[in-house]
Amino acid sequence: MTQLLVRKVRLPAGNMADILMEGGRFVRIGSGLEVPPGCQVEDGAGALALPGLVEAHTHLDKTLWGMPWYRNEVGPNLTDRIDNERRWRAATGHDARAQSLVLARAFLAAGTTRLRTHVDIDTDAGLRHLHGVVATRDALSAQMDMQIVAFPQSGVLGRPGTEALLNEALRSGADILGGLDPCAIEGDPVRALDLLFGLAQRHGRPLDIHLHEPGSMGAWSLDLILQRTAALGMRGMVTVSHAFCLGDIAERERDALLQRIADLGVVIVTTAPPSRPVPPVAACRAAGVRIVGGNDGIRDTWTPYGSPDMLERAMLIGLRNNFRRDDELAVALDCVTHAAAAACGFQHYGLAPGDRADLVLVAAETVAEAVVARPVRQLVVSAGRVVARNGALA
Amino acid sequence: MTQLLVRKVRLPAGNMADILMEGGRFVRIGSGLEVPPGCQVEDGAGALALPGLVEAHTHLDKTLWGMPWYRNEVGPNLTDRIDNERRWRAATGHDARAQSLVLARAFLAAGTTRLRTHVDIDTDAGLRHLHGVVATRDALSAQMDMQIVAFPQSGVLGRPGTEALLNEALRSGADILGGLDPCAIEGDPVRALDLLFGLAQRHGRPLDIHLHEPGSMGAWSLDLILQRTAALGMRGMVTVSHAFCLGDIAERERDALLQRIADLGVVIVTTAPPSRPVPPVAACRAAGVRIVGGNDGIRDTWTPYGSPDMLERAMLIGLRNNFRRDDELAVALDCVTHAAAAACGFQHYGLAPGDRADLVLVAAETVAEAVVARPVRQLVVSAGRVVARNGALA
Ligand SMILES: [Zn+2]
Ligand SMILES: [Zn+2]
Repeated sequence: MTQLLVRKVRLPAGNMADILMEGGRFVRIGSGLEVPPGCQVEDGAGALALPGLVEAHTHLDKTLWGMPWYRNEVGPNLTDRIDNERRWRAATGHDARAQSLVLARAFLAAGTTRLRTHVDIDTDAGLRHLHGVVATRDALSAQMDMQIVAFPQSGVLGRPGTEALLNEALRSGADILGGLDPCAIEGDPVRALDLLFGLAQRHGRPLDIHLHEPGSMGAWSLDLILQRTAALGMRGMVTVSHAFCLGDIAERERDALLQRIADLGVVIVTTAPPSRPVPPVAACRAAGVRIVGGNDGIRDTWTPYGSPDMLERAMLIGLRNNFRRDDELAVALDCVTHAAAAACGFQHYGLAPGDRADLVLVAAETVAEAVVARPVRQLVVSAGRVVARNGALA
Repeated sequence: MTQLLVRKVRLPAGNMADILMEGGRFVRIGSGLEVPPGCQVEDGAGALALPGLVEAHTHLDKTLWGMPWYRNEVGPNLTDRIDNERRWRAATGHDARAQSLVLARAFLAAGTTRLRTHVDIDTDAGLRHLHGVVATRDALSAQMDMQIVAFPQSGVLGRPGTEALLNEALRSGADILGGLDPCAIEGDPVRALDLLFGLAQRHGRPLDIHLHEPGSMGAWSLDLILQRTAALGMRGMVTVSHAFCLGDIAERERDALLQRIADLGVVIVTTAPPSRPVPPVAACRAAGVRIVGGNDGIRDTWTPYGSPDMLERAMLIGLRNNFRRDDELAVALDCVTHAAAAACGFQHYGLAPGDRADLVLVAAETVAEAVVARPVRQLVVSAGRVVARNGALA
């Protein structure tokens, strides 16, 4: 059994400890642990130990990470961006396999060991992106838990053949069914949601729906999603990504929705963009709603921003929600660690004996400092093996 | 005359060049420059060359940068934060001289060579913070242009003796007179603004007023500020920092204010916080308003956030304003370079022959990439001398 002992780290609660791992799991956490014979030893040097970071929403297949700079001259609307991306892909033959691997490795180097990625499925690309990302998942399977969402980026209803592709995607490596704005993009929310929920039910798979729609339109779409979640017994099987509408409807209406969301175990994923209304993290948690963090796209034809660093995303969640107190910053971190793992259903997660031995060391005194300072990842351990040092893959 | 030649850099416009500096100024910029005898040579290795970065609004005297982590347990109101800070200072005897030097040096290492800092003046601290920051300015005078604002953080009207201290501060090293929310903090906007404008006039100094007040209250305070700017002939002498109200009043009212702001040459400084309404950069610029960027406080008792990195602030300005196109990201950079230098009145600024030789090299293909990726500062030159390499002071 491979053993690894990381000595002298500070646990999130503040106490110092040594951490012993064996067979890919944490086995003992305590002070002054003896070194078993033949055990690899790493000196934590007083660094803060965090569990492996969790990315709950990204798009590995779209990224231009590591490629020459893409000059963004795109128009301002959602449809401009969808059309631009489709044109650009046709012209360049974007390699989703190579690019998803580059970005997934950068995530790993920055301490992310569990990740949910949406992958474009459409009648132009077919399942090409899915196959590429599945190959990346296979290549990294020893170091990273990856969930793949089959995402109809161009909508389902307007492009005949998409439903069949989604069906095929769920048999070919996709774990979860995606969806997109049932009013604003699909144009027929009842038909679109019935189709998606039906497909998810037939496959017994969870749903993760992008909902960008603002205000009362978004709230109505959300209502339709919640109705179906209840009627079809899909409690705990539905995620709504973005849910911007929860940031710009009246508090009474919002709180009524939050109560239903909590009761149905629906997960909200927020990227906490500074330029839009967003679901307020504190209000969601107070209502019992599981709200977790994701980057969305990282340096692609949609956005030049983003970094495969979940501590930076936690910082942005903190900034967007005006979290300044240490206890609030711990909530921001929870959105990209424990809460995210639980919401996505990643197993054996945590920093306790028996959990999968994923560990990130950073030079920080406290969790709050780790979020605001985003220090270089001194050491990243995945399943009990060192995978990165000082920000670079080992 | 000390000479420095930096070879093979990419200028912001995209072309490659060598840059020759002499006597603290740029003297030639072109390709294939000959090395003058005895000239120091640095290899730019194709890095992007930016002018020295400009911080238009920070608080060097308050920072805890480099100190043990400060556990923030402060209440949510402006007055909670002011009171907490005053209590904390009384308890700790915060050393504004040492701390301002630590943070100013970190700014310099990250490429900032011009900086405007507000310094607390109140009846508890007296001029102690001012003296500390003046000492820092003196210590760094060869590398950094620093403007000091005498800032009555606890208000002027409620604490008798503050006006006399501000008067003294303007004779003791402060360049600019500060001020704070004339309604919400001072409680008597006419009397507070008359006092501040009168003091500024007697000293012939510019004003830089913190205006956090939201909506119609803030718009009314802004109206009172503009009235006095016009009546007293202080065109081009007034800065309003934050001006959150410009982000949450009706567009018609906002545009009428922007027109007056532009006509009076009033500068708006934005920190672009993700959690508050903010002055929209594009609308301000379209109206001819000079709007520039600043961090505000960095890791102090008010906020755990912040970094002395003006490229990160440019990124946050871009994110807050939903700037995605390359031409928009160039505007975000302008807010912390040319526009900021012009608005603050920093002299001899730019990347042209005759300008002071302040230069920052980063591994980026384009200005847009520099903003979103915030690469480590490969080389920082101030007044023709290398002051930092790879993010650390030389
Ligand atoms: Zn997405
Ligand atoms: Zn300030």
